[in-house]
Amino acid sequence: MAKTTFSLLVDNTTGVLGRVSGLFARRGYNIDSISAGVTADPKYTRVTIVSSGGEEELEQIEKQLYKLEDVRDIKRLEPGQSVLRELMMVKIRATDKERQGAMNVTEIFHGKIVDVSHDSMIIEMMGHQEKLAAFLDLLCDYEILELARTGVTGLSRGSDDVTFL
Amino acid sequence: MAKTTFSLLVDNTTGVLGRVSGLFARRGYNIDSISAGVTADPKYTRVTIVSSGGEEELEQIEKQLYKLEDVRDIKRLEPGQSVLRELMMVKIRATDKERQGAMNVTEIFHGKIVDVSHDSMIIEMMGHQEKLAAFLDLLCDYEILELARTGVTGLSRGSDDVTFL
Repeated sequence: MAKTTFSLLVDNTTGVLGRVSGLFARRGYNIDSISAGVTADPKYTRVTIVSSGGEEELEQIEKQLYKLEDVRDIKRLEPGQSVLRELMMVKIRATDKERQGAMNVTEIFHGKIVDVSHDSMIIEMMGHQEKLAAFLDLLCDYEILELARTGVTGLSRGSDDVTFL
Repeated sequence: MAKTTFSLLVDNTTGVLGRVSGLFARRGYNIDSISAGVTADPKYTRVTIVSSGGEEELEQIEKQLYKLEDVRDIKRLEPGQSVLRELMMVKIRATDKERQGAMNVTEIFHGKIVDVSHDSMIIEMMGHQEKLAAFLDLLCDYEILELARTGVTGLSRGSDDVTFL
């Protein structure tokens, strides 16, 4: 099923994330990823939500999101007309012998090693989702101890249709 | 007020993000940032939440989070013992004359320009929150058209106390 990325500009109020994500839940839609942070103006938060569903249902959700009084603006970030990125951190088991191999894979993908212990490493990797998937695929030779990812964020390309926040 | 970063391992179920963020809202706590994505095992999602509040109240929230049946594990990511990162995308107004200045600032901060139009640029910047704040501070000479950030994500350093997901 096609994935749709919504970029919402909302008031930075208590519970706004619960109201927004609750709206998806009530319609039985799982949120594939959510990321949120304040904008240049701390009165507002930008929330990026990736959800999969039929076009008809997503239109319904969009209409209901507009009815929430915290929601100021909703955009869909279309793949070709947007820059979509995600940040991932992976902790793998890597002893002295395995370290060089993991370093090579990380370098090829332009990632960065941000922590090393005698038997583990944390790799920081940023990119579009296909890149992260390809990197994880190459890590299958290693034991993944922990993984954290931010969820997708993004902006539409160019200066048309900007929200000035 | 001190900021606390919670790293939650939860079941990847419909509405789990609403239940987690709703718990903060009901106690009147704003979530400074939230980021969520599936782990190496797609049955689970890791949610990273930054919240500010007194120690006593945060302990109460932690206890209540444990009571949610979707929640498998809760960790606090302590600044010295964790790697915390955030990804930010900023779209600024930049005409031909302003472009070089913005490129210089981006290079100094090891950021990347990911979109250029005749009057705008999108800069991708990753780092800890202080770095992002310092970068935004330097951008004050430019008009910020749009800003999206993922919220903080992170992992504890080393291989003690890992959740294997």
